[in-house]
Amino acid sequence: MPWIQRTIELAAQPRGFHLVTREVVAALPELAQIEIGLLHVFIQHTSASLTINENADPEVPADLEASFAAIAPENFPYRHTCEGPDDMPAHVKASLLGAGLMIPVQQGALALGTWQGVYLCEHRRRGGRRRLVLTLWGETAG
Amino acid sequence: MPWIQRTIELAAQPRGFHLVTREVVAALPELAQIEIGLLHVFIQHTSASLTINENADPEVPADLEASFAAIAPENFPYRHTCEGPDDMPAHVKASLLGAGLMIPVQQGALALGTWQGVYLCEHRRRGGRRRLVLTLWGETAG
Amino acid sequence: MPWIQRTIELAAQPRGFHLVTREVVAALPELAQIEIGLLHVFIQHTSASLTINENADPEVPADLEASFAAIAPENFPYRHTCEGPDDMPAHVKASLLGAGLMIPVQQGALALGTWQGVYLCEHRRRGGRRRLVLTLWGETAG
Repeated sequence: MPWIQRTIELAAQPRGFHLVTREVVAALPELAQIEIGLLHVFIQHTSASLTINENADPEVPADLEASFAAIAPENFPYRHTCEGPDDMPAHVKASLLGAGLMIPVQQGALALGTWQGVYLCEHRRRGGRRRLVLTLWGETAG
Repeated sequence: MPWIQRTIELAAQPRGFHLVTREVVAALPELAQIEIGLLHVFIQHTSASLTINENADPEVPADLEASFAAIAPENFPYRHTCEGPDDMPAHVKASLLGAGLMIPVQQGALALGTWQGVYLCEHRRRGGRRRLVLTLWGETAG
Repeated sequence: MPWIQRTIELAAQPRGFHLVTREVVAALPELAQIEIGLLHVFIQHTSASLTINENADPEVPADLEASFAAIAPENFPYRHTCEGPDDMPAHVKASLLGAGLMIPVQQGALALGTWQGVYLCEHRRRGGRRRLVLTLWGETAG
């Protein structure tokens, strides 16, 4: 199968961790044809990031948000403050969490564990829409 | 060469950082045939993770465990506490470290630096066996 | 197109975050021929790492350095101290940031966002030259 590459825009979200597994999968109908492969998800921003975490209890994303706010606090003596107090901690969180995820594809679906989901980590209060580049490739069953 | 994808289960480990390079390589005899390629290692859990770090001095994994326990402490005011005091910090550490690693393959072997090894990071006291999805692809010499 | 794999050495840098996007791209003239693909950048060391972050304001890398020095401080009670006070925090930072980056390739160029750049994160005072393994593959336009 040829490589698939597609850019999608996620709806603007408030600061926090937001499950987007469904949006990512919905953008890739070709996933169903891949027997063995990989999906790369990349966010083209430096104040938001991506992670895989527990997809069931809504208290988990709330605790992730609180934990990362403690690890990269707003009240640190940053020099880069021209874009507001949530900008530089957003950059620190973006490097802690990362701009990309690679997910194995197996028999036409993402090979995530039962409790794993893909999160958009929005680190700004008003981050706006976020752009993802999805790259999918692998072997078809045929 | 066709893509290789294989699921392996790692033996249950106590909380801490455990070298598993040998287990990963042993599961992939096809590695020897790949001239240029990549290996993706993915853990299907959200309270354990994977990292690459120093493979020689056993004090390094002990210090990594202590450091990550300080960065994501158990005594933080988490809401998600129903699965025990080590569960939510485990999720934070899983996002800090990540669920996947990509390693270059060169002339039939992993192209790790001399001091690099693959670690299973077990964040629970009793995490049980952990499942890895290994995906290998590349060019053969022929 | 065949896979491209190339090892490059980055010049020695002082401790801190250093933009290396230009060095990475310059080592891969074949990038221009790839219509859809991926570039993997891997550092073969455990006391330096790679990240993607804001490429414009020089205060951002200064703040990243200060932030990671606070998250993984030198004055933590490490056991592994034989290689100097900046060695064990370097290993912690290497695991927080990661040894590898995957970047989508689109129409002959890296599909980075406008403000994204590739950083070498040098965690030692005298880390010396650092070795990167670049692996590039994808589809040509033809």
